[in-house]
Amino acid sequence: MASKINIVKIGGNIIDDENKLNQFLQDFAQLPEQKVLIHGGGKIATEVAKKLGIEAQLVDGRRITDAEMLKVVTMVYGGLVNKNIVAKLQAYGCNAIGLTGADANIIPAQKRPVKTIDYGFVGDITAEKIQVKNLRLFVENGLTPVIAPLTHDGNGNLLNTNADTIASTVAVALAKSFVTKLTYCFEKKGVLANIEDENSVIHQITKKTYQTLKQDGTIVQGMIPKLDNAFSAIDAGVKSVFICHADDVLQILAKKEKAGTELVSG
Amino acid sequence: MASKINIVKIGGNIIDDENKLNQFLQDFAQLPEQKVLIHGGGKIATEVAKKLGIEAQLVDGRRITDAEMLKVVTMVYGGLVNKNIVAKLQAYGCNAIGLTGADANIIPAQKRPVKTIDYGFVGDITAEKIQVKNLRLFVENGLTPVIAPLTHDGNGNLLNTNADTIASTVAVALAKSFVTKLTYCFEKKGVLANIEDENSVIHQITKKTYQTLKQDGTIVQGMIPKLDNAFSAIDAGVKSVFICHADDVLQILAKKEKAGTELVSG
Repeated sequence: MASKINIVKIGGNIIDDENKLNQFLQDFAQLPEQKVLIHGGGKIATEVAKKLGIEAQLVDGRRITDAEMLKVVTMVYGGLVNKNIVAKLQAYGCNAIGLTGADANIIPAQKRPVKTIDYGFVGDITAEKIQVKNLRLFVENGLTPVIAPLTHDGNGNLLNTNADTIASTVAVALAKSFVTKLTYCFEKKGVLANIEDENSVIHQITKKTYQTLKQDGTIVQGMIPKLDNAFSAIDAGVKSVFICHADDVLQILAKKEKAGTELVSG
Repeated sequence: MASKINIVKIGGNIIDDENKLNQFLQDFAQLPEQKVLIHGGGKIATEVAKKLGIEAQLVDGRRITDAEMLKVVTMVYGGLVNKNIVAKLQAYGCNAIGLTGADANIIPAQKRPVKTIDYGFVGDITAEKIQVKNLRLFVENGLTPVIAPLTHDGNGNLLNTNADTIASTVAVALAKSFVTKLTYCFEKKGVLANIEDENSVIHQITKKTYQTLKQDGTIVQGMIPKLDNAFSAIDAGVKSVFICHADDVLQILAKKEKAGTELVSG
């Protein structure tokens, strides 16, 4: 029987708040099964860039990663954020190992081709290219990969890749070898039936009920890309996807209590 | 029979010059045996600190690592320098994995106790504490560790540790499992009999000839701590230590030609 693995993604709302981050990492360290943590960048990269006099480049309202900004995200995501998370997890008894996609070649990427916009040093990735062998080597030897949102093109260049995309792509790749659960930590308690009411969490959404919830307008526009991605991951073999508040990760994944929204096939 | 491993250390004179770094990494990637690369920081950390308005703190002429400087070296050593080396090595066909001492807990350290000077976030290390098990896991599975000069205290704090010290300590720790060669890349071609003459490289120094060379003043003051450390590593089981120019690493370690200075027991 395949063993279980939890892929958990955290973003700026946790990374930027040291108390929340410490609490989350303490909970994460206690998860009983094999696990992988994927983190985004947070506001620190923007702050460091500003102090260094590097301006965020926008083209048609979209953020692009030029050579200078790539250096900043390599420093902040690959260095400051990643290594501090690793050191904290070590203190909580979790044998973490910080990685970018270049390390052990775990996430080879393709620089995004220029169509109407040149996004700069941004990497597109596919589940087929993920080096599952090395990720397995780590988790099967008691190590917990902590992955920064950076990949590489195989020609010596690092690339910036969205952390949500890394989380779902790594989950799909690992689903061939493990029973895989993917959890997105979110600023709300889950998908809400009423956006104004934090207690209106919808605890389970199937592919069928998702269609209904979209049609009747319960699920608002901003959530749709996130949920579409989640259901694509499920179609590609991920067992279930949770969308929940960081505070609830331990109780959900250790199955202590019902919380957050679980997306399942069917 | 124990397999062979090469531990190679590079410093600022290579890291700060992109052409030299590329040439070195291309040579390093071709080394036929199992290998570990340890890198220092270079000038980039000082430049980034300056741009961020962080001043290097000196006490009695000695550099100390305060909390702000620790953030800078974590960004620069652990992120920018380490991950760019990894991405370049991947391009040269070497499956590198970038690590600090916190990753996989490979180098647990102790924050240097305050005696007359408080060095701040600086870590002292011993060969006994190095987690050889995980380093072996990596090299025996075809991965090449690239180690940044950062360690951790096990309580969630990263620490700054001298790269030369990491190189000799890791070499001593690995000497229990491997036939270990330690190579320091240097700005000169080796230990020179005449400091003015680049071609006066002393090709081999034994513990016995080292004493004579020190007594007759051939070996100058500045080299003594480096050589003392090297001979301590040899006493602790490292097979040989080379001090050479980065350009000569491949020919020395692939035994193509005699170059650099080899330090040996006896």
